Amino acid sequence: MASLVDAYIETNHDRLLGELKSFLKIPSISTLPQHRHDIERACGFLVEKLLAAGMKNVQRIIADGHPIVYGEWMGAPGKPTVLCYGHYDVQPPDPLNEWASPPFEPDLREQNLYARGAADDKGQMYIHLKAAEALLAVRGTLPVNLKFLIEGEEEVGGRAVDRYVRENPEPLACDVALISDTEMFAPGLPTLCIGLRGLVYTEVVASGAYQDLHSGLFGGAAPNPLLGLAQILSQLVSPAYQIQIPGFYDDVEPPSPEEKASWAALPFSEEEFLREVGSPALVGEAGYGVLERRWARPTLELHGFVGGFQGAGSKTVIPARASAKVSMRLVPKQNPQKILAAFEQEVQRLTPPGLRVQVRVLSSGEPILMPPSHPYIQAASQALAETFEKDTVYIRSGGSIPIVALFQDLLHVPVVLMGFGLPDDRLHSPNEKFYLPNFYDGIRAVTRFWGHLAELPPRSPSAA
Amino acid sequence: MASLVDAYIETNHDRLLGELKSFLKIPSISTLPQHRHDIERACGFLVEKLLAAGMKNVQRIIADGHPIVYGEWMGAPGKPTVLCYGHYDVQPPDPLNEWASPPFEPDLREQNLYARGAADDKGQMYIHLKAAEALLAVRGTLPVNLKFLIEGEEEVGGRAVDRYVRENPEPLACDVALISDTEMFAPGLPTLCIGLRGLVYTEVVASGAYQDLHSGLFGGAAPNPLLGLAQILSQLVSPAYQIQIPGFYDDVEPPSPEEKASWAALPFSEEEFLREVGSPALVGEAGYGVLERRWARPTLELHGFVGGFQGAGSKTVIPARASAKVSMRLVPKQNPQKILAAFEQEVQRLTPPGLRVQVRVLSSGEPILMPPSHPYIQAASQALAETFEKDTVYIRSGGSIPIVALFQDLLHVPVVLMGFGLPDDRLHSPNEKFYLPNFYDGIRAVTRFWGHLAELPPRSPSAA
Repeated sequence: MASLVDAYIETNHDRLLGELKSFLKIPSISTLPQHRHDIERACGFLVEKLLAAGMKNVQRIIADGHPIVYGEWMGAPGKPTVLCYGHYDVQPPDPLNEWASPPFEPDLREQNLYARGAADDKGQMYIHLKAAEALLAVRGTLPVNLKFLIEGEEEVGGRAVDRYVRENPEPLACDVALISDTEMFAPGLPTLCIGLRGLVYTEVVASGAYQDLHSGLFGGAAPNPLLGLAQILSQLVSPAYQIQIPGFYDDVEPPSPEEKASWAALPFSEEEFLREVGSPALVGEAGYGVLERRWARPTLELHGFVGGFQGAGSKTVIPARASAKVSMRLVPKQNPQKILAAFEQEVQRLTPPGLRVQVRVLSSGEPILMPPSHPYIQAASQALAETFEKDTVYIRSGGSIPIVALFQDLLHVPVVLMGFGLPDDRLHSPNEKFYLPNFYDGIRAVTRFWGHLAELPPRSPSAA
Repeated sequence: MASLVDAYIETNHDRLLGELKSFLKIPSISTLPQHRHDIERACGFLVEKLLAAGMKNVQRIIADGHPIVYGEWMGAPGKPTVLCYGHYDVQPPDPLNEWASPPFEPDLREQNLYARGAADDKGQMYIHLKAAEALLAVRGTLPVNLKFLIEGEEEVGGRAVDRYVRENPEPLACDVALISDTEMFAPGLPTLCIGLRGLVYTEVVASGAYQDLHSGLFGGAAPNPLLGLAQILSQLVSPAYQIQIPGFYDDVEPPSPEEKASWAALPFSEEEFLREVGSPALVGEAGYGVLERRWARPTLELHGFVGGFQGAGSKTVIPARASAKVSMRLVPKQNPQKILAAFEQEVQRLTPPGLRVQVRVLSSGEPILMPPSHPYIQAASQALAETFEKDTVYIRSGGSIPIVALFQDLLHVPVVLMGFGLPDDRLHSPNEKFYLPNFYDGIRAVTRFWGHLAELPPRSPSAA
């Protein structure tokens, strides 16, 4: 089968590239209303290509927001069903003057295809479509059942798809979800991401006086909510970067010795990482390596203060109110609700006299960890290893991907994060690119993955 | 003399009010370019009224900014010269919908004249003009020499007048400066403000990574300048509101026992002040009363943080850079340069690894304290006591008035802060007002002040 797919890819090499370029030429920027028509064009492109690949029941699901594109192929009864998720929307391209070639005129230079959305996520999700097309073309059938779910709001919070999945878990029933929207740990190194940190994102609001006061006339008597917030929040993290919230670490499940050993074997240089960050030094909890601190240790960050004076020059104001955006990243077995309660309690305990403080939750999500031994994960691992001719590495990400938690919680399926991006793809930045050989290798790996899945039974109905 | 002035005021009562209303009708808002014509109109009004009052050498000084209006009467050789300072510009009136009557249609309700600029400073500075007019009208001469200096940029930093005074100290030579732009401590209580706190206003800038980073992918390894700044700055103030900068209090000169005793006798209620502030409690250094904390103790305040994310909702950013506006109010004998150096040193000492921090000075000014025993202050005190038939109280202000320091430093003269505003005049806020009886009593008090000054010798030339 692989050799037939290889031949198909060879024969259709330039057409596939041409199609991807056409897709990338559509500036489907989800956050800008003036690109609403381009959103429609991107949907139209996908509908056409899903039909051309042989998908059935192709439709544009009109959601409360940008449309979701759906298509399926259910001709493999008794075989597992794979939900292929991706997104067709892209980030705005600003600042335009930093692009070496225009963001919506895809340009191939030294095997890299430069365009906004090249890696995030058009180039990667298009792999799934072309894998289905290739298999149907060379074999007339697919080894597994497929459901495509492609949304247009990933870059703006994914509200429409979240609602759709919550309201329609039945039509999306499947055995495993496949997402290609992450990175390989290093070029040529097949990678599965099996863990994501959870998140509790809050806004902490402190109020003092009725109204903004003059710091000359009231300083020394009126409480300062900005100073108070700074004092409260800075006490939550020790100089050794330990979080000082009682009970915060109680449920933390450390990575297994095997997982830690596998991380130690990854091609990772702390010096190079420091150069990439560009700060005078790296920081974080003593006793943990950089990867472990980012992937498997919880953190607390301040993202912004609102209130008082932020313009140029000086204004002598004691603000009546100030707020701070504060988030905590969580790791396996930490419960967002429990952490939030402990956070709020500690914030209240630390609130100095003269201030009232309120904690608001803006978003929260559970940490995720997939067992590498799961047969579906193993199928993916094997497919990648065969394609890239190297053992697949298992990594985690310190970030959070809400759709992964949604699929786990609502559809009760494992999620395979099979990423073909590279660490230097510059997602969300000027000169985003996609390493073109990974596009073709991606098609090979995905067809192999489906082939291996077909050798496994679908999950028992009771597990759903 | 007083009775002649009283008679003049009675006869001209309605005309004086009409003139003040005409002045207040001009929306001379210095910060809004579209009011440039109104700035000119206010200047024209003052030029006309200075001439009508009998001033000589009246001129519009074209400065690098809004014009300064000047006028003088130098017909009392051998007598002291008084520099009468005021400003004709006003704050913007927003929010308009909170005004009970339109801000530039002066409305008299229960002896209060409501209008933007009524107390700050048109109503108060116009007292000086009308005092000169009244004396010249009833006596044909003045007991002292007068120089009027009326600027149009007080509400936007006073850059033009600052430059003019620095470049022209000779033509402004005088024995004492008179400013009516402050408050009486309570209605009917004659008040001289003899002390002002100094100020060091800084911006503290912290830098970490080259660029903004994703808190999921980098949290746990990359330094967070916002958290770092919060940690540095919050350590500068103890929970007991003591400033933790080494040497910070070394030069502080406490108020004399007499001054403290006089403050204790002021009609001040901590409960009422707390109600005015509206916070759950008042704060500040233990062991000092509210007035002493605001007038005679140094403080440190945060005014704003810049950097990271300040919009609605959540963004998981670790900013590359963050800055904070931080000021310290200083009290007599503290030196701004010395305090700044100690502040900067302590900020650097507290800077955690991974960050670079820089301190920028945005403005600084010396604290000011006038001895109440100075004969010119005594002359003012006596004039106020006679007018209001109560002993004059000496207070300080926790704020800073840059022009006062400028007159002290450049002209080497004492500054009499003879304010006729009241604590509820709502300067800079909707429904600003001026208590009209204070307008007429102000004219009486100022003419008396000049009369008492005339009994004193001018300062010896060597003191200038």
